[in-house]
Amino acid sequence: MNTRLAHFLGGSAGRWQIREIRKVKGESLPWAERLEIADSIPFSEVAWQLQGIISNTRYTTTEEKKQLEAKQEGLGRSDSTYAVMIPIKKSEAWWQLNQDERRSIFEEQSSHTSLGLNYLPAIARRLYHCRDLSGDEPFDFITWFEFAPSDETPFDDLLVHLRSSREWDFVEREVEVRMVRMDG
Amino acid sequence: MNTRLAHFLGGSAGRWQIREIRKVKGESLPWAERLEIADSIPFSEVAWQLQGIISNTRYTTTEEKKQLEAKQEGLGRSDSTYAVMIPIKKSEAWWQLNQDERRSIFEEQSSHTSLGLNYLPAIARRLYHCRDLSGDEPFDFITWFEFAPSDETPFDDLLVHLRSSREWDFVEREVEVRMVRMDG
Repeated sequence: MNTRLAHFLGGSAGRWQIREIRKVKGESLPWAERLEIADSIPFSEVAWQLQGIISNTRYTTTEEKKQLEAKQEGLGRSDSTYAVMIPIKKSEAWWQLNQDERRSIFEEQSSHTSLGLNYLPAIARRLYHCRDLSGDEPFDFITWFEFAPSDETPFDDLLVHLRSSREWDFVEREVEVRMVRMDG
Repeated sequence: MNTRLAHFLGGSAGRWQIREIRKVKGESLPWAERLEIADSIPFSEVAWQLQGIISNTRYTTTEEKKQLEAKQEGLGRSDSTYAVMIPIKKSEAWWQLNQDERRSIFEEQSSHTSLGLNYLPAIARRLYHCRDLSGDEPFDFITWFEFAPSDETPFDDLLVHLRSSREWDFVEREVEVRMVRMDG
């Protein structure tokens, strides 16, 4: 069984009702009523599908990991009825950078981890990697966020900070899919 | 076209004649006469197939990259008629380490990059990543080496050094496939 690979299926069925699909940069995704996360691709028709894989961290230090683990909570909390999926694609220039350069832009210049830390535990997140699944993926990453509806304003605030960071200069495609859970 | 993803096909046909398949740690690969590297999976039967994707570097610093680029030569040199493919799988403990811990083991404790640098330009290499292709891959990495037959002794020497390093404590499966080019 493959527990790291996830399929994000936009269509007429699914646990998550889509409230909004917003194009942030580059091409958007087609409209769909619902979204389901599945561990395999169904035979039934979907409007679109994305895939991502849970992988090892690439920039997080031991100290940062400790801080994150002390504050973070998991996905699936009963009051976290809002979810937002944000697929992004970074530029070729990003991928050509060396590890020390990417780390410096990610954290020392853009405070990616420490920004997210400020919004814990309210805004739970999970990162899926796409880029190395096939070499032909439309996005490099999918981040999945979950929070209570009352935390949507702080969530928007987090996005404003991230998008004004140096790291986001390397983002060439970004879409926001905002959802509400249907069974909770 | 997908230029990052490669399929390594062991069977009865291919540009590389297999001289030896040696089990280093864990389960080996079945015998095959030939190996071909292809950008898609053929319909014809193969004894086994592995896949790997060329990705961004994960540990290399700007300074190390500069040193590598100053000394390294590409694959496909006419006198590099020997190739060795080494697929390895690392332990779950490795993947649970943080970036600073993995980097420290990889370079500060195991001199992975600086060791390889000593054998440039004679031993050319290319790294393919497998682990995040599906989450079900039998190996995490495939390294492809090319050198002249007269450089097989230094190549063996490089392997001895790498395998005695701290990093190799985390390797739980490793196979060596030694080949000679048939058209050169």
